[in-house]
This record gives sequence, C-alpha cells and structure tokens, in this order.
Amino acid sequence: MGTGSVGTVRTEYYSFAEPPGELVLESGERLGPVTIAYETYGSLDAARGNAVLILHALSGDAHAAGLHADGGARPGWWDNMIGPGKAFDTDRYFVICSNVLGGCMGSTGPSSVNPATGGPYALDFPFITIADMVRAQKALIDHLGIRELLAVAGGSMGGMQVLEWATAYPEMVRAAIPIATTSHLSAQGIAFNEVGRRAIMSDPAWKGGNYYGGEPPRNGLALARMIGHITYLSDEAMHRKFGRRLHDRKELSYEFLTDFQVESYLHHQGDAFTQRFDANAYLYITKAIDYFDLSEKGGGSLVRACAGVRASFLIISFSSDWLYPPYQNKEIADALRVGGAEVSFVVLDSSYGHDAFLLEAEQQTRLISHFLRHVHEDHAPGGAHR
Amino acid sequence: MGTGSVGTVRTEYYSFAEPPGELVLESGERLGPVTIAYETYGSLDAARGNAVLILHALSGDAHAAGLHADGGARPGWWDNMIGPGKAFDTDRYFVICSNVLGGCMGSTGPSSVNPATGGPYALDFPFITIADMVRAQKALIDHLGIRELLAVAGGSMGGMQVLEWATAYPEMVRAAIPIATTSHLSAQGIAFNEVGRRAIMSDPAWKGGNYYGGEPPRNGLALARMIGHITYLSDEAMHRKFGRRLHDRKELSYEFLTDFQVESYLHHQGDAFTQRFDANAYLYITKAIDYFDLSEKGGGSLVRACAGVRASFLIISFSSDWLYPPYQNKEIADALRVGGAEVSFVVLDSSYGHDAFLLEAEQQTRLISHFLRHVHEDHAPGGAHR
Repeated sequence: MGTGSVGTVRTEYYSFAEPPGELVLESGERLGPVTIAYETYGSLDAARGNAVLILHALSGDAHAAGLHADGGARPGWWDNMIGPGKAFDTDRYFVICSNVLGGCMGSTGPSSVNPATGGPYALDFPFITIADMVRAQKALIDHLGIRELLAVAGGSMGGMQVLEWATAYPEMVRAAIPIATTSHLSAQGIAFNEVGRRAIMSDPAWKGGNYYGGEPPRNGLALARMIGHITYLSDEAMHRKFGRRLHDRKELSYEFLTDFQVESYLHHQGDAFTQRFDANAYLYITKAIDYFDLSEKGGGSLVRACAGVRASFLIISFSSDWLYPPYQNKEIADALRVGGAEVSFVVLDSSYGHDAFLLEAEQQTRLISHFLRHVHEDHAPGGAHR
Repeated sequence: MGTGSVGTVRTEYYSFAEPPGELVLESGERLGPVTIAYETYGSLDAARGNAVLILHALSGDAHAAGLHADGGARPGWWDNMIGPGKAFDTDRYFVICSNVLGGCMGSTGPSSVNPATGGPYALDFPFITIADMVRAQKALIDHLGIRELLAVAGGSMGGMQVLEWATAYPEMVRAAIPIATTSHLSAQGIAFNEVGRRAIMSDPAWKGGNYYGGEPPRNGLALARMIGHITYLSDEAMHRKFGRRLHDRKELSYEFLTDFQVESYLHHQGDAFTQRFDANAYLYITKAIDYFDLSEKGGGSLVRACAGVRASFLIISFSSDWLYPPYQNKEIADALRVGGAEVSFVVLDSSYGHDAFLLEAEQQTRLISHFLRHVHEDHAPGGAHR
C-alpha cells in the first residue's frame, strides 16, 4: 500500500500521578508517579478532531511508525499501516501510540524505580489490568488536549484496549477498530500464558523477580516467547515458511541439535526477545491479558457491557487466527449489534494466523482507510451527529 | 461400551540382541542387549491368527488394559477399548502391547544400564526412530511365535508405528488401524516438541542428561508436559472443561497465583508426569516423532512409500484434533488408495481434540469391532485371500 514513511521520529514521555495524586488501579492499589512513553505522527488539526490512538500488543511499544534518529533501530511495528497515504494516513490524521503501563519500553513498569526503595519495583509493582493501561492512556490524551478521539485501533491485546476505551469512555471514542482480538481470553489462551510464566518463574535466574543488575532469566523468557510465537503463526504458515526443511545440514543429525529450520527460527525469536524485553513485564502483561473479560462490566453479560458504546465499529479478524479465532471476534460484533451499535465485522482470508494483523497490510488498509474517511468526513467535529 | 475388564495383568519382559548380535538402528548405531516390556490379554488361538498389536503414544506404556496385581495402580491407558466385548475384544483376540524402545516403562531406554559403563546410558543412548521401535516390536512378535498379525492399531505416535509396521513388514500385517496420526510431523508439531525439549535441557537439574541418582529436571519436564497437554485438548474442550472458572477462590487474586482452574489443571498434569516419566526418554521419543516421515521410504513420495502395503486400513481422525488434524490423516488415506489399498477413512465428530483417541470409546468401538470382525472372519488363517 502507501509507500510513505513518517520519517524520523522520537519517543516522548509524559509523567503524572505524582503522590499524593497517584493513579488508582483496578485492584485498588495506587501507583505514582507514572510515566508514559509515546510517539505521535502527523498533525493535530485546529478542531482537535483528527486524533487516532494506536494500541499495541503484548510485546509492542510506542514506536509504531518511522525510524528513530539514532539509526540502527528497526522501523515502527506498524510502519506498513501508519504513514502518508497508508491505512492510518498521517496526511489526514494525528496518530498517537503509547507504551502500555506495566511495560518495559519507557512506560512505568516492574523494571522502573520504586520511589519507596530507590531500586526497581520488581514484584512490588502493583498488578495492572487492561483497564489500568487505558486509564493511563486517558491521562495522556487529556494532557495532549484531545477531548474526543476520531478512532482507537489495535490488534490482539491492542484490540482489548480498544474495547476498553469504547466502553469506559464512550463519549471520547467516535470509531473503534479492534483487530484479531477477543472480549475475554479463552482457557486455551490462559493456558499458553501460564506455561510461559512458569517457564520464567522456574528459571533460577529469575530469583523471585529480583534479577535486576544481574543476569536476567533469559532461558525462561526465551521459552515463553517461543511458545508465544507458535501461537502467532498458523499451521499452514509454518508449513509454507519452514515445512520439514533442515537447518544448515543435508541429513538428519541423529543428535540433539537443531535439525529443522523451524527450530532455529524459534530459538532465534526466543533469544532475540530477551535482548529487548523484561521478564517481569512479560509476567505482568500476560496476567493483564488473562484477567481481561469485558462482560464483567455487564455483570457477566457482554451485551450489557457493550450497551453504552457510542462509537462505530470496524472489527477485523483473520481466517487462520487460532489464538483469537474469528468466532471470538464475532461474539463482540453480535453483542454490539444487540445494543444498536453500528458494526462492520470482517473475516479476512489469510494464512498468516494471528500475526496477520501485522502482515496483511493491503487487505486491512482497504477496509480501514475507507472506514476512517467515512467517520472523519461524515461527522462534524464535536460529535454533531449525536 | 463393553464393561468387561481383562482383570489382573502383569508386565512381562523379553530380552534379546545380546552382543555381538545387537539391534542395528536406523542411524547405523548398534544397541544391545535390548529388553522390551509387554503385556498380553486374551488367548492366542491354535492357528496363531488372532493377534492384535497395540502401539502406544508418547507417554504411554505396555500397560494398556486391566489392573496390576500390586493394586493402587491405575487401569491400562486404553482400558475402555481393550477387554471382553470391547473394541479389541479379548474374547476373540490375543492383544499385545509393548513399551517402546527408548522409553522408560520397562523397555530399554536412556535410563537403562549401559553395559559399557555399568551406569545409566543418559545421552550415550543411541538415537532411536519410529522404525527402530517397530524393529524391536518385530523381535518380540517373532519371539511370541506369531507370523502374521491380525491387526496393528494405535493413536498419535502409536499410529506412526502402525504405518511403519504396514510398510516395513507388509506380509505380517492383515489390518492396520492408525488413529489421530500423520505420515510426517508438521512444522508446528516439531516446534511444540522443540520447546518442550528446550525446557528440559535448560533446566539446570538436567545436567547434560546426567541427573540419575540425583534430582531430575522436574521443572523442565513439567513445562514440556504442560505444553503437550494444551496441544492434546481442543479450544472447545478447554472451554467446556474450565472456561474462565477460578480455582479455589471467588475473586481474581491480583497476585502471581493460580487464578484459573485451567492453570491448576496444567500444573497438576505437569507435576504428576514428573513422578512417572524420565526426562531423557522424553527427549529421545519426541525426536523420534520429529524424525518420522513415511514418504522418505518412497524417495519423498508418500504414494510410493505406501505402494507395497497389503493390509486393509481403517484410518480414524477427529474433527477437533489440531495436533494431527483430519487433513493429515486423509493424506495417508489418499496415498494408500492410489496404490490400490483397501481403506476406510473416517472423521469422527468430537470436541475432545487430539485426546479423543483415548476418550471417544463408543464411536471408535463401533468402527473397530466391526472392522476387526470383518478382517478376522473373511480371511482364513495364513492369508488365503492373497
């Protein structure tokens, strides 16, 4: 799709919730001060009506598009979707992406300094939920002087945040684009997350979370990431990408070596992840995912939980996504429609599995650019359509 | 189905391949002596024409039916399928089940004594393949004086052994019942196995495989088993069995505890497994599974690999099995049919996932009892039908 890049970008930081005005979390605990790392692309228009908030998945960060000035860094994680002429067209929209609360990419998380001790929080960091991530984003959006978001969009855990935004702050969200997500994590999803957590916590280097300043639990975190990666790809995608091709050899080794390419791919993914991600943040964020159940807002009813939304929805799922399968996305669409919301629900044909939300730029761009333009043009700033 | 039990049974042992007559393995290495643990149920008829060989999956053993005399032990792993009046009717058939070569349930494997050192083999144990497992079984069947098996049957890795039997010793197999299996492990399957192996091998207690006499790598083995268990269940089965129900509590803990029932189930399965299974055997057996690719016998062609079979086939798969999905079972049926084999291919509707081959006794019994009776009655002893 669009070939434009947002160019060189830099990460900014917003700090708030200084004691005694701490952020009150869903658990009842208080956290402060809080810093949120974020990036913006494009320009906020005079009416402040063109802001689009992008929400990232488990291992994402604020760097969603462009390149950092220091060079060497990779392009933003959704660079194929954000930029001039792209799905999230920065010639039209002011795009914001922030690192989630509890993360390790600039926002306050378990590796941040605990003001009470002067050392890293580690496991003294309070539990955070998807709703807490969104509360922190709300503070950032307020700080940026934006009263209404043209759209909130994100895939996977980002989609959970989209649902949280649309239900927690209905008056602030005109359009919502949850992608490859679910209203509640399935038992299978909880199971995969728990195995990853146990891999980390049973690594002796984890030391009850107090590994900062020493060797982090690389083996455990790499294992967790390897498990995750299998769930992000489909059977078909793995077959196409690797099949049973051997790695660096012509015959089976008959030893405990890496025989197959799929093995070396997973090892590489696992090991590379340990260079950029904090194991404790992995624990906290996967727990936030496990805890997410939108229906709790409706006393167990997803329909009631969705009853107050005012946004128009574009819900995108992918045929081969078995982590958040199409039927789970459709449940959201069905519940929203019962409440009278305007909903487009799409199952895109893709063999990429859950990763499709990062890879299927062309199909998504057609849907999203049209949807956003419709919402942007049809509705006067301030929400006259209501 | 049939409620009969084979009653009290005991495990027997057959030793062979004394040096210098070692078993020659697919890798070219030699192994001897070899002991195979096995059990039999029912009686061999005078014509020795009613023998059915049952082949077990990754974590199975020779104890397929009945109860051990020492009490306390659980019934055999396929007790719902083997016994008087059951699918493998011990009033009609002489049923044999042996523990695989490389295992840890009585057959020679990495925890056995290496005659060269007097200590456990550990990683000096040679690599074994599915074909090697079958070679050892062939020695046992010869020892029992059986020249032709009425049937070979098994699920998962047991199904791979069925395919190996029917192609390696076509003249010895009248009927073959591969269940929930594949002609070659998929990239996704290799990936799950490799994560399990890495979990074991990165557990410091593993010590390069030399943990015998000390603490075994329980954490790593438990993790491997937890990963395996997720792949044995379907999304739907996990939803029905656990959903998002909490474990031993009424509210979310907001701590790194076991919140959900599915987590405690997996921990229990993982930990219980470490009480009965050897971590090195897990490494060897999963590698044998990874290496299995029947098409290699046909120079890369599954059709050519299957060309020489003489058995009638009943191939059973399950709709919700995503580890060895129906399409992988169908590939076998299609290849066999090209070669003119008599094949019944069935996809049973089940929500149990891969575990269905252990749980769907009623549906399988209808198919298998009819199929076996047909083969048994239609063909005179000695294979007059050829």
